[in-house]
Amino acid sequence: MSEVLLPRLSNASAPLTREVLAVNEFGEATSVSIPCERPLTVYVDKRELVTLMTLGACPELLVLGFLRNQRLVRSVEDVESIDVDWEVGAAAVKTRHGIDDIEARTAKRVVTTGCGQGSVFGDLMEEIDQIGLPPAQLTQAQVYDIVNAIRLQESTYKSAGSVHGCALFRREQMLIFVEDVGRHNAVDTIAGWMWLQQESNPEGGLQPMASTDKVFYTTGRLTSEMVIKSAQMGVPFAISRSGITQMGHQVAAQVGLCTIGRATNRHFLCYSSPERLIMQPELAASRMRVVA
Amino acid sequence: MSEVLLPRLSNASAPLTREVLAVNEFGEATSVSIPCERPLTVYVDKRELVTLMTLGACPELLVLGFLRNQRLVRSVEDVESIDVDWEVGAAAVKTRHGIDDIEARTAKRVVTTGCGQGSVFGDLMEEIDQIGLPPAQLTQAQVYDIVNAIRLQESTYKSAGSVHGCALFRREQMLIFVEDVGRHNAVDTIAGWMWLQQESNPEGGLQPMASTDKVFYTTGRLTSEMVIKSAQMGVPFAISRSGITQMGHQVAAQVGLCTIGRATNRHFLCYSSPERLIMQPELAASRMRVVA
Repeated sequence: MSEVLLPRLSNASAPLTREVLAVNEFGEATSVSIPCERPLTVYVDKRELVTLMTLGACPELLVLGFLRNQRLVRSVEDVESIDVDWEVGAAAVKTRHGIDDIEARTAKRVVTTGCGQGSVFGDLMEEIDQIGLPPAQLTQAQVYDIVNAIRLQESTYKSAGSVHGCALFRREQMLIFVEDVGRHNAVDTIAGWMWLQQESNPEGGLQPMASTDKVFYTTGRLTSEMVIKSAQMGVPFAISRSGITQMGHQVAAQVGLCTIGRATNRHFLCYSSPERLIMQPELAASRMRVVA
Repeated sequence: MSEVLLPRLSNASAPLTREVLAVNEFGEATSVSIPCERPLTVYVDKRELVTLMTLGACPELLVLGFLRNQRLVRSVEDVESIDVDWEVGAAAVKTRHGIDDIEARTAKRVVTTGCGQGSVFGDLMEEIDQIGLPPAQLTQAQVYDIVNAIRLQESTYKSAGSVHGCALFRREQMLIFVEDVGRHNAVDTIAGWMWLQQESNPEGGLQPMASTDKVFYTTGRLTSEMVIKSAQMGVPFAISRSGITQMGHQVAAQVGLCTIGRATNRHFLCYSSPERLIMQPELAASRMRVVA
């Protein structure tokens, strides 16, 4: 296959935590870490699009993934460059051919449930019918490995709290772990990262990263937008330590996405597409035998 | 004072949870409660404004508070009626005089950090400078009473999880407790409720509910929007079991709002305006004596 033309990205990461003084219950002034949070205004071809509030770990990937998940850009090759400048809190996106009809496509607002980018442009729900997720299965052992990998991950959450984390796995192997003040930023960052990846294909060439063997993990709830974004990325599994909302459940059932919530230690609940999950109940029981 | 003209509201509450089948780690199909989540499209004088995703407990108060907190309506008397019809998922708002300049005022979008209504219209941050919070203090004992009242509160969270709760207190007395799939909906619902309340004044008449002696509680993080919304309501205290983000901290310090996070059992951290908090460190220590 021909080479993919990737966008040129700046590399404007920024400190993720800062220290502030707080007074505890004993009346003592104590220094605590809190997550940073910065406004980042996105300009597409010099037109102001939106302001995102972000931790600032991977702003270029965030902007790329935001454009992807909002369906404002159809191919990574449409983006020529993304330049982030924290001095002015701006991300300048240059496209190769402009965005058709951008006024109309950003006119309709839906204020949604989840953390972070509660606003989605356009009619994402209408696209849901067109999504076909690849056939794929995951074993219970792999679910446990994923939950354990997240448990061991060093994070801003551990040092400062108040952020959401998302990760992308190839089966049980963690590929990327992202945190942000809103989990939508975190999943958008993953979507941006995926667009930049190339994988070897059986013919020895390169191809865009496949989604069949991928698993999406979020510390936040499985709301409709998280399920939609996972489905948009073509990822057939979404795992969370938290629960699911009705719309998340409905969308997951509609597109055949396997959602697994309340995943801590050996416990979990598979809310949708359980046929994608290869059960190994003896693994759940093994812990109990150890305890007993 | 002359009588306040309150809006006429429908009373369209709806079931808050539903049962779905999930498969647990032993491979057993098990019935679990999940929170309901419904799209509610708001029409103001027949013009479509926004679609909110909501649990559906108090949709009319939610819509009223949304209009208030987005500064689209300046006085409760400007709203003639709010009719919610779940059959079509619509809230029809009728105003007495229309909303001036509604096109321009809903044109600017900021996608924010928090759960729920991540999108705010206009330049709320610009209003921050104009906010003056009343002088008020809270004792450590009252903080503990508030945390305890929340702990004892029956809730959808306890039965189904995956929702955020907010409450308004008069000092340590809980006035209203609201849950929603996004905590912004919950705080907007409280703002709507406050607008409908009348309190006795010293002259024996009625006046709009005062904010001086009020305390806002949220189960979610103290993000900038939560702090802004508390300040907009004139409430000088915000308490959370969770932490604070940098922008939340910055805005709270700017307006002199007392933020108290990590509030569980006897522990808490006061991040801003500690002069509003009357410390009683002996209360923090008393639990330790009991334990020892």
